[in-house]
Amino acid sequence: MPVRSLPFPSTPPAMPRLNPLLHIVLHQPDIPQNAGNIGRTCVAIGAKLWFIRPLGFVLDDRHLRRAGMDYWEHLDWQAVENLAEIRAVLPDARIWCVENVGQRTIWQADFRRGDLLLFGSETRGLPQSLLDEFSATTLHLPMRSEVRSLNLASTVNTVAYEAVRQFGGLIG
Amino acid sequence: MPVRSLPFPSTPPAMPRLNPLLHIVLHQPDIPQNAGNIGRTCVAIGAKLWFIRPLGFVLDDRHLRRAGMDYWEHLDWQAVENLAEIRAVLPDARIWCVENVGQRTIWQADFRRGDLLLFGSETRGLPQSLLDEFSATTLHLPMRSEVRSLNLASTVNTVAYEAVRQFGGLIG
Repeated sequence: MPVRSLPFPSTPPAMPRLNPLLHIVLHQPDIPQNAGNIGRTCVAIGAKLWFIRPLGFVLDDRHLRRAGMDYWEHLDWQAVENLAEIRAVLPDARIWCVENVGQRTIWQADFRRGDLLLFGSETRGLPQSLLDEFSATTLHLPMRSEVRSLNLASTVNTVAYEAVRQFGGLIG
Repeated sequence: MPVRSLPFPSTPPAMPRLNPLLHIVLHQPDIPQNAGNIGRTCVAIGAKLWFIRPLGFVLDDRHLRRAGMDYWEHLDWQAVENLAEIRAVLPDARIWCVENVGQRTIWQADFRRGDLLLFGSETRGLPQSLLDEFSATTLHLPMRSEVRSLNLASTVNTVAYEAVRQFGGLIG
């Protein structure tokens, strides 16, 4: 079912935000509905959404609508080949991973404006190489043992709003 | 597309939790994927999930799987006709509504164990009568004006984990 492709138009968004509140990075996401909901979260708080390819879905107009992407025109987004591309343009951004193996809870992070929040794919999580590199800044949400993981979009929204809480609200 | 029906088995779950951390109440939800993700959140934190009928979907085995309901057997849930039924069995539970019109942010709430969090349908929100009754305890997440609402499951997860944060983690 997953289709490897480059579903997004190659032109950048019309009005990129110069100083996003946060950078939300999805590593090889699989499910378009999640991407749509996460895009909505990003517009809601003024975050930029990054996609690291390959993506597990195609987004044409019909899929955009079905995935709740009616906010897409307001979204500052970019698709790249790997994390290094993002770090090249954001050399000072601190990187937080969010995975079950995280040593700290999201509440033990000290988020700052412009931080980069990196989330793995719904089916494969983040690659071990990234978890190893960022083990000191990998965060988790506490969960009872019956549940292996929460929905990706729900997790992104929860971590992003924890940052907003720490910022004292939506700033700028 | 919405089918009014009683999709859930009428038998109660095998092992209801006696003291749920929270009571998550969905008022006439429309979208089964959201219900599935919210059920997962409830299992993850030990909350009970309540449905107020009518529900906008049918959940047979195939839909349960597609909606990520593989955690369903661990979920303490109940479907009722109205909020009064829930209040009758939880007379002391405090009720928080979550809607854009909320006077306070979720961070200005002081959640206590056993609180009831009430969420409206994806398409219609909560009825005005409930918003009027609970206006003093209606909460919102701050959002930029481009976005009318966030995904319901994302919102539930974020509010539920804000309560967990206030509790100091998953207790009991």
